[in-house]
Amino acid sequence: MKPNDLEAYLHEHIPISHQMGIYVVRADLECVTLGAPLEPNVNHRSTVFGGSCASVAMLAAWCIVLLRVREAGRDARIVIQHGEVDYLVPIDGAFSATSRSPEEAVWSRFLRSLERGRPARVELAADVESASKLVAKMAGSYAALPIRKR
Amino acid sequence: MKPNDLEAYLHEHIPISHQMGIYVVRADLECVTLGAPLEPNVNHRSTVFGGSCASVAMLAAWCIVLLRVREAGRDARIVIQHGEVDYLVPIDGAFSATSRSPEEAVWSRFLRSLERGRPARVELAADVESASKLVAKMAGSYAALPIRKR
Repeated sequence: MKPNDLEAYLHEHIPISHQMGIYVVRADLECVTLGAPLEPNVNHRSTVFGGSCASVAMLAAWCIVLLRVREAGRDARIVIQHGEVDYLVPIDGAFSATSRSPEEAVWSRFLRSLERGRPARVELAADVESASKLVAKMAGSYAALPIRKR
Repeated sequence: MKPNDLEAYLHEHIPISHQMGIYVVRADLECVTLGAPLEPNVNHRSTVFGGSCASVAMLAAWCIVLLRVREAGRDARIVIQHGEVDYLVPIDGAFSATSRSPEEAVWSRFLRSLERGRPARVELAADVESASKLVAKMAGSYAALPIRKR
């Protein structure tokens, strides 16, 4: 799944991501970076709404799981089970969220669970940056639930 | 600030809240409930996008702080410093987030800080429900930063 395809997928299937102006900066098995402009995500103080910041960060990490599951030729319902965000400073411009892949051993375990038809879980993080400065940090627990063929 | 005024305020100052279809169900010093339909917040599996769920819940608690600050005749920059959401089950329809006020002693301390020109902090929670079922829980740390008159 190439960056352009991922962006089209997000905009089609999660329409609020389109409203938020989310675009894919980088998307591969090692790292996903999603960007977003200030304007559609602005709050009452001309900085980024906390909910938009959380959305972009949670989505960046979710995309890593999607790419890993697709790469393995699997289909699964990928959901976030817990997500938390530390807001470090107000974000007063365009911003991006980068989620980096954990080590391969984590994905080996993860995919083994899926292959056995069991829910697979993974902890991921995302750093939110604006103007090359770290502005927020997200940590999330994601699960991929095998889709049973009928 | 009446529910209708709060809704207009949110839609004007946090435009993505309008895109999410967020509306005010109840808004007073004791409790804020915000509702949202599924459609603009839908994800790839026809359930609510986790980022939208987080946004509505974080905003409900934020509104309580806004109403408390306004009631006290103060002006302050109200920000979320940390927010976390437990996603209990997929949300497959319209949903709402309810944040209830903590005890009055919490607000007394909070407003005392503001009166002294210091940042005031408060921990709030919000329950997200859909079809009368608890579907997610949010906990957030909020700060009101005094606005210095120039």
